[in-house]
Amino acid sequence: MPDVRAAQRPAATTATTGMFGLEPPGRPAPPWTTREWFGPEGAVQLADLRGKVVVLHAFQMLCPACVHHGLPQAQRIHAAFEAADVAVIGLHTVFEHHAAMTPVSLQAFLREFRIAFPVGVDAPGADARNPIPVTMQAYGMQGTPSLVLIDRRGHLRLHAFGAAEDLVVGAAIASLLAEGG
Amino acid sequence: MPDVRAAQRPAATTATTGMFGLEPPGRPAPPWTTREWFGPEGAVQLADLRGKVVVLHAFQMLCPACVHHGLPQAQRIHAAFEAADVAVIGLHTVFEHHAAMTPVSLQAFLREFRIAFPVGVDAPGADARNPIPVTMQAYGMQGTPSLVLIDRRGHLRLHAFGAAEDLVVGAAIASLLAEGG
Amino acid sequence: MPDVRAAQRPAATTATTGMFGLEPPGRPAPPWTTREWFGPEGAVQLADLRGKVVVLHAFQMLCPACVHHGLPQAQRIHAAFEAADVAVIGLHTVFEHHAAMTPVSLQAFLREFRIAFPVGVDAPGADARNPIPVTMQAYGMQGTPSLVLIDRRGHLRLHAFGAAEDLVVGAAIASLLAEGG
Amino acid sequence: MPDVRAAQRPAATTATTGMFGLEPPGRPAPPWTTREWFGPEGAVQLADLRGKVVVLHAFQMLCPACVHHGLPQAQRIHAAFEAADVAVIGLHTVFEHHAAMTPVSLQAFLREFRIAFPVGVDAPGADARNPIPVTMQAYGMQGTPSLVLIDRRGHLRLHAFGAAEDLVVGAAIASLLAEGG
Repeated sequence: MPDVRAAQRPAATTATTGMFGLEPPGRPAPPWTTREWFGPEGAVQLADLRGKVVVLHAFQMLCPACVHHGLPQAQRIHAAFEAADVAVIGLHTVFEHHAAMTPVSLQAFLREFRIAFPVGVDAPGADARNPIPVTMQAYGMQGTPSLVLIDRRGHLRLHAFGAAEDLVVGAAIASLLAEGG
Repeated sequence: MPDVRAAQRPAATTATTGMFGLEPPGRPAPPWTTREWFGPEGAVQLADLRGKVVVLHAFQMLCPACVHHGLPQAQRIHAAFEAADVAVIGLHTVFEHHAAMTPVSLQAFLREFRIAFPVGVDAPGADARNPIPVTMQAYGMQGTPSLVLIDRRGHLRLHAFGAAEDLVVGAAIASLLAEGG
Repeated sequence: MPDVRAAQRPAATTATTGMFGLEPPGRPAPPWTTREWFGPEGAVQLADLRGKVVVLHAFQMLCPACVHHGLPQAQRIHAAFEAADVAVIGLHTVFEHHAAMTPVSLQAFLREFRIAFPVGVDAPGADARNPIPVTMQAYGMQGTPSLVLIDRRGHLRLHAFGAAEDLVVGAAIASLLAEGG
Repeated sequence: MPDVRAAQRPAATTATTGMFGLEPPGRPAPPWTTREWFGPEGAVQLADLRGKVVVLHAFQMLCPACVHHGLPQAQRIHAAFEAADVAVIGLHTVFEHHAAMTPVSLQAFLREFRIAFPVGVDAPGADARNPIPVTMQAYGMQGTPSLVLIDRRGHLRLHAFGAAEDLVVGAAIASLLAEGG
């Protein structure tokens, strides 16, 4: 899929292993550093979601693979799983065309595309020469769309760049749900 | 989906409850009564699959919803899950146009559509006035396509008639895998 | 598209040139040699359709590319153009799995897949060693699905094997309509 | 399709009649009033395209039906027809979320979605209370996406709001091509 937006080389830390690509627990997911949130809940912190499986969907509003594949999948996940069990969170990780994808544009995008889950805007880094925002850096994401699964205890368990199959994503989420808290 | 082929009224016994439509264990899946099998393994009995999660996909080769939706989904399940954990089994449950869907035609169909999992031919019933074959009757299936999930201990856990979402099917299978034997 | 069913090597006579793949007029389309017809009109001869643009869709009921692409396209053509201007005709050109695709099976297939245009069964050849039926031979078709366009005067103008884009097929048909009789 | 963006009530002047929705000639297409152009050709005037069939695709970059249906169709038209015969032109007709769809955002959108045909930005009207831009008003467009076909002599011949079938659009373009200049 040529539309996938590559930001950087794969980081050694994102290797995934095991059933449905799940990593064993052991690596706490970094907190999110955001500058703004959209959605009725307002700001959402990872720590607030302890006890739920968290589906973190990193996207850019002008990334074709995000618009055609990643975001529709995130919307299906949001509709298919109970909110009490699974939290779907969008993260706008702009690393190119910054002037074109401001929060003003994102807000209209979210409304027109009817994104119903909370979306945070990843914070720009301190080093102006590095276009990659803070949370994207902290997670070692390679580009957009990226799908991250975090277990009920806050551990990072799956990190996929590009398209992921619904069957496998559904199975991975259910596996984490079955682990219990 | 108008192409779904309805065979009979819903049976009271097919009610599904719980996460992803899963029923609680307690109802052993009936054995399969077949007249022929296609696939390298030859005949497959449900009892042989104890310890695996079984995905039973009931179809007719001339049912459009089976060809366009159900069978491609069964093929995706077969590709996505490990054969050591999940057994995908096709069941040709002909209840109409019997002369048009003989085993000779089915064999060519399976070859041309590259169905890679074992397929059994459901046995005609003893009463010639009842077009519904034996296994289809035993499971109380309402038509084709029907998707049945059987847990590692041989209990019937999900029974869906018509289209089912990949995300939910993947989650249901993974839930049964997580139960262990 | 690996599902396309190749019957034989390309014949030199099927080269297409010009806008939308249209050949210049000059080559009368061979008559059809059939053994049976399905549809309310009964038997249809090419000569009866003089004055209309004829869309001849050659298929096999167990050819995946026909079921997934070719026949749905033929149904869209049948729905989009006026019957007074454009005649859509199916031709069942079985060249493999003959016992699996008998007229009995075809009849059920046409009913279940709701094919609303007339379908003729191409006649087996005199030479039992050659599996390719008579009309398929006469047109030099390379396999299924094949799309043939015949102009208002009965000349063969386009011959495409495999998938053809709706935009281009629509444009080719309209070009032939614009030629007048 | 709920994503189609309605701007105003249907105008009486957009009624279409005849084959493939084509109107008879007689109504010159209004010139375009734009504030900026993207694409290697720079600014494009309708008068410059006399002799070609013009496909004018009006869209907004944050309109889901434009992104999922209209623009991909315009790209297919651009690829399927010869540039010497058919000119595909995009028109960014922003009538809502103006601050979110500035030319800066549009430029990044066109690049990321690989829009290969020229795109003009419709000019804002003189009356600041009316959000509908000048060319959109002049054509009486009801919303986005809108597809407009203009014949070789510059007459408006088709005006469709919302989704249009590829088969029918291809046929309409070919009909106009066949008219000659």
